[in-house]
Amino acid sequence: MMRFPTVSRAAVVREFKAPVCIEEVPVPQELEPGTILTKIETCSICGTDVHLWQGSLALKVDLPVIIGHEMVGRIVAMGAGTERDSVGQPLRVGDRITWTHTACGRCYFCTVAREPTLCQYSRKYMYERMDVAPYLLGGFSEYGYVLPDSGRVKVPDSVPNELASMASCAFRSVMNAFDVLGRVDPTDTVVVQGAGPLGLLATAVAKISGASRVVTLGAPEARLALAREFGADEVISIETTSHAERLDRVRALTDGRGADVVMEFTGHPSAFGEGLDLARRGAAYVVVGQLGQGTTTIAPSTIVAKNLRVLGSFSGQAKAYWKALQFVAKHQHEVPFHKMVTNRYSLDEVDTALTRMKNFEEIKPIIAL
Amino acid sequence: MMRFPTVSRAAVVREFKAPVCIEEVPVPQELEPGTILTKIETCSICGTDVHLWQGSLALKVDLPVIIGHEMVGRIVAMGAGTERDSVGQPLRVGDRITWTHTACGRCYFCTVAREPTLCQYSRKYMYERMDVAPYLLGGFSEYGYVLPDSGRVKVPDSVPNELASMASCAFRSVMNAFDVLGRVDPTDTVVVQGAGPLGLLATAVAKISGASRVVTLGAPEARLALAREFGADEVISIETTSHAERLDRVRALTDGRGADVVMEFTGHPSAFGEGLDLARRGAAYVVVGQLGQGTTTIAPSTIVAKNLRVLGSFSGQAKAYWKALQFVAKHQHEVPFHKMVTNRYSLDEVDTALTRMKNFEEIKPIIAL
Amino acid sequence: MMRFPTVSRAAVVREFKAPVCIEEVPVPQELEPGTILTKIETCSICGTDVHLWQGSLALKVDLPVIIGHEMVGRIVAMGAGTERDSVGQPLRVGDRITWTHTACGRCYFCTVAREPTLCQYSRKYMYERMDVAPYLLGGFSEYGYVLPDSGRVKVPDSVPNELASMASCAFRSVMNAFDVLGRVDPTDTVVVQGAGPLGLLATAVAKISGASRVVTLGAPEARLALAREFGADEVISIETTSHAERLDRVRALTDGRGADVVMEFTGHPSAFGEGLDLARRGAAYVVVGQLGQGTTTIAPSTIVAKNLRVLGSFSGQAKAYWKALQFVAKHQHEVPFHKMVTNRYSLDEVDTALTRMKNFEEIKPIIAL
Amino acid sequence: MMRFPTVSRAAVVREFKAPVCIEEVPVPQELEPGTILTKIETCSICGTDVHLWQGSLALKVDLPVIIGHEMVGRIVAMGAGTERDSVGQPLRVGDRITWTHTACGRCYFCTVAREPTLCQYSRKYMYERMDVAPYLLGGFSEYGYVLPDSGRVKVPDSVPNELASMASCAFRSVMNAFDVLGRVDPTDTVVVQGAGPLGLLATAVAKISGASRVVTLGAPEARLALAREFGADEVISIETTSHAERLDRVRALTDGRGADVVMEFTGHPSAFGEGLDLARRGAAYVVVGQLGQGTTTIAPSTIVAKNLRVLGSFSGQAKAYWKALQFVAKHQHEVPFHKMVTNRYSLDEVDTALTRMKNFEEIKPIIAL
Repeated sequence: MMRFPTVSRAAVVREFKAPVCIEEVPVPQELEPGTILTKIETCSICGTDVHLWQGSLALKVDLPVIIGHEMVGRIVAMGAGTERDSVGQPLRVGDRITWTHTACGRCYFCTVAREPTLCQYSRKYMYERMDVAPYLLGGFSEYGYVLPDSGRVKVPDSVPNELASMASCAFRSVMNAFDVLGRVDPTDTVVVQGAGPLGLLATAVAKISGASRVVTLGAPEARLALAREFGADEVISIETTSHAERLDRVRALTDGRGADVVMEFTGHPSAFGEGLDLARRGAAYVVVGQLGQGTTTIAPSTIVAKNLRVLGSFSGQAKAYWKALQFVAKHQHEVPFHKMVTNRYSLDEVDTALTRMKNFEEIKPIIAL
Repeated sequence: MMRFPTVSRAAVVREFKAPVCIEEVPVPQELEPGTILTKIETCSICGTDVHLWQGSLALKVDLPVIIGHEMVGRIVAMGAGTERDSVGQPLRVGDRITWTHTACGRCYFCTVAREPTLCQYSRKYMYERMDVAPYLLGGFSEYGYVLPDSGRVKVPDSVPNELASMASCAFRSVMNAFDVLGRVDPTDTVVVQGAGPLGLLATAVAKISGASRVVTLGAPEARLALAREFGADEVISIETTSHAERLDRVRALTDGRGADVVMEFTGHPSAFGEGLDLARRGAAYVVVGQLGQGTTTIAPSTIVAKNLRVLGSFSGQAKAYWKALQFVAKHQHEVPFHKMVTNRYSLDEVDTALTRMKNFEEIKPIIAL
Repeated sequence: MMRFPTVSRAAVVREFKAPVCIEEVPVPQELEPGTILTKIETCSICGTDVHLWQGSLALKVDLPVIIGHEMVGRIVAMGAGTERDSVGQPLRVGDRITWTHTACGRCYFCTVAREPTLCQYSRKYMYERMDVAPYLLGGFSEYGYVLPDSGRVKVPDSVPNELASMASCAFRSVMNAFDVLGRVDPTDTVVVQGAGPLGLLATAVAKISGASRVVTLGAPEARLALAREFGADEVISIETTSHAERLDRVRALTDGRGADVVMEFTGHPSAFGEGLDLARRGAAYVVVGQLGQGTTTIAPSTIVAKNLRVLGSFSGQAKAYWKALQFVAKHQHEVPFHKMVTNRYSLDEVDTALTRMKNFEEIKPIIAL
Repeated sequence: MMRFPTVSRAAVVREFKAPVCIEEVPVPQELEPGTILTKIETCSICGTDVHLWQGSLALKVDLPVIIGHEMVGRIVAMGAGTERDSVGQPLRVGDRITWTHTACGRCYFCTVAREPTLCQYSRKYMYERMDVAPYLLGGFSEYGYVLPDSGRVKVPDSVPNELASMASCAFRSVMNAFDVLGRVDPTDTVVVQGAGPLGLLATAVAKISGASRVVTLGAPEARLALAREFGADEVISIETTSHAERLDRVRALTDGRGADVVMEFTGHPSAFGEGLDLARRGAAYVVVGQLGQGTTTIAPSTIVAKNLRVLGSFSGQAKAYWKALQFVAKHQHEVPFHKMVTNRYSLDEVDTALTRMKNFEEIKPIIAL
């Protein structure tokens, strides 16, 4: 077993748009009940990391913070009452886990609405100051601290760190979106808006869930090629087609009706209106990527005249983490998840990695710790 | 039994915005299987009638047409195979019925999507030329022709014509909206946007379905007073409050959370964005009134960050007509439905009635035939 | 504020079928995080209390235990982290609360199935030995101890102890059953099997949820009379009718179809088969009362040929407690809940109270502490 | 185009348990609106055919009838108004179709319950006398008559007769069962009870819908081997194991919990109770095969204590036929559906075929016409 450490090297954002500093951050020397200390092994980079770094998030962030939030860690020490993970699997020092933002279990949203992701007292990793205890609430760090109200899920032995790490945020959001949708019918044409990490993962889940046809919209070509490997029957480049052409193409594939299911993972407000148009009458439209500040102009009559179900899907509970990990464990030999990992960086290279992510030169790079 | 008539006096629109003409229209002299000829007794006026008359509908209308579409008629003659209504009740000459737009039962939307209101071959009353057989497909007419693919529902004896007639369009749309919603929970605060006929009816249904609190938004004061009589616990005037004030008011009523359920019946595109704001995280938002051509600007992130379910509800099947009529029969002594009937006009007064409706001087006036 | 007590008088079962002893039980002198010590004010009697006392439960019980489990208590002292109840309402010493069996939040059933009532590590009040700490896990006791993993819900000021206490078990089970059902449709005929406490409460909820017709089956006549006061449109005595007669009666009320919804609260295995018969084709059948050891013979073809949805509903989460209390607060002036409280006893009279309950001489008597 | 025929050779049951006679049956010489005359090309044999022949159905059958009901026919002549099939695909003479039992569209079950398979006026093929017009309402016949209220679905060109024919009854029932279930979750263990035609098809659908693990229970070994080819991850022989052993095996596969989903296709009443036991707490149990007269003894407490959803699934609408055909068209190269066709017989061999079916020597033999 690893000796209890005193400091953790970590990538700290002290100023928006400025270079990220690698600093030594204190490690809490006592673990209160429910908490876990982990040696972080891998933390993948998410588009949100770039937005935080650049100060462009809607959410106000109180600096300094440790950046990074898609992490997998190996248990170093355990507080009281942590012998099982959130789904009942036994935990011990040396096991690998991923963990969720916190949910208090004591508010209207946790208890009545039964949706912990909407918890009004939630604490979120990467969004808390690193200069007050327990310090280690970000992912690009040697050590990570799991809060008592965080879900935590054991990583199956067969799942490598790189895939476990993306399962902790990107994939759990996708899994949650499919829970919100409820069902992929064997005759469904599913349109996936977006060929970034979430769009690619959703393409794979839709296909393996038995969709009759999966159509992925995005860019650039390399990602669309990867979308095909992930299960897309058709891909449509948003760089070389107009809105009208995409609409025509989807209708042509569906006897003129439009998609039975549309799922959005783009982050571009304009994609929302396009999704409404791509959906057939009576369709479900699951919206996931719209988390930025932008607005868009739509005709609300589309929703009524087409009897649409427009379903927002935000983040995901511990259940979604577990499902994502199970899915990776089961299907990693069919779906080339590893091809999303376009690069591996050390902690000292976080700045370079974020810059390349910002320039769209990466899909899902990882920081190996 | 009534003698088979040869002509029907009817209110015909030959030119948008021009006075409506009362003309003699031929009555089909043979009834094909599945059709019914009725003596129309009452046809209430709907906002859509005004929009058609003024040429302001999104839908292109091929003139001339007989205007009016919320009608109740007494059976004069029956084609083969019409001995039962759509829910199995026996029909005979002399019975009163209401009837639905047609659904073919032979398309993807009727059979696979199971949503006849989305039928791609639907024929709609008031929207078909009155100079080709079977002529009598509008409501402000002495006689009405029920097409073979129209649902038809017997009016309970206890329900007067005036209430049966509004049940045929306004109320069935409201009933359908509650089917789309799925459930009013006994702890729900339901916000109803709109105090027109649909908003008033929805207020009554929400209340009688056991909502903890019904809050109706609209104007003018007289309608809000009526909303209280229909069951609203709170009313908010949209004339004397700002968007921010309405939001504050609804939050104040709900421990700061917002409404558990929002239902829209206004027709104003801007109400759509307001509804998204009034909803609490995890809420359901049923949208009914957005059928015009307008657009509005929204932040799609509201839908995602709040995990909203936004549910379009268009029109209603025969089931919704039956439910509306049953509801009226059961609750007409608790809910003052009749107060919605602000005036009664003869066929010769259609022009006056439409003009007053256009000027918001009426709620649900009727043409008595 | 009350001084921290050292002993609590409590009704202890040391031997099945033997008289219940009033003993002095130690009060824990320290409160671990998440726990609450309450002065119990009222504990109502449930049929299950009698079954435990008589040793006739399916579940093995390890004696001695403090009997009673439908309790409302006033907070005497609070462990760390208990400043809000399970739905976010602030708690302080002197507030009244009810509380749930525990759910670990760390097992497949809590996290994946999202059903804390199925928690595989649940601890249940009245079922734990009173001679090991924290001793006070039963309801007929001066003091009660709330475990950290128990939901706890503040009692609204307007709800008297007697009604709050029945909301803590009987009514939360009924509220959960309506959540499982999903919707009472305004045209539904709801058949309630049973006129005991749960059947009466379900009758009230069905009625206030807007059911077209509520039919309550049970006995004796006095309870059926009460069922009418609770909202039953029709009652059918199971003492004076045969199965076939009850079936005929329900069919006669529903144009020969049978009930749209059937809800079972009897505890008699034979009622299960009768419920299947009373349901119309396509109906929902919610089963709540079947918790005993018995078996019954059914024709499973009924479930298939009628396309039934048969839905088991066990216990209820904190959400159901809160909803029950809200329902009582809102509707206590319409529904004579208090008439269910057939007698009030002191702690020293527990034996008498249980004996009368056993002999069906009571509906919902209470122990006032 | 084929000449309009005057007689059809057909297999007629005039007496239960007696040899089936091949007779000449009149062909209707005029087609009323909505009807279609087909040249039947293939009719597969269903267990129900044997039960009818042996007089062992619960349903009373009025002889003589033409036996057989899983048929695919080529259109010979079309009544008025039949130019589209039930999902909107164009139909013309020479196209192949399958067709459904009738639904009136004018009863409570068709319109309010929205479940045409429960139609109270349904007419069913194989169950009507062949000595009154329109005579040809059975499948082992050269010609078949499609009633106006029957759904009809065009067979995709790529689907051979043998597979289209089983899609018309067996597979549509399976597709309907999955619609009733609602969703196969990617982490679900699905237990399929039965390895007959329906169990095998359900095994394939569960697998292709992305179930984590499919476990098929049945016998004999040859069918279980086929179940593996259809996608079963595990098979359990009911010949070599006891109820307790099967329960142990399923629990061992699911960390002791039991199956997330159980689907029943056996027809044996005792399987119903076993299914309740195999299901984990909170599971869904879809029951399809229980259509015989038998009874079984169960503990209804299992349904409550485990919070089960027990869902009857009877037959299937036109939607289910279309979905089954689409599924076969898409997946026939992955799933060896054709291996279910254990033999092909001529019309003159119906007696032999039924006898072998009765003796369990066949899975899904067909009559080629």
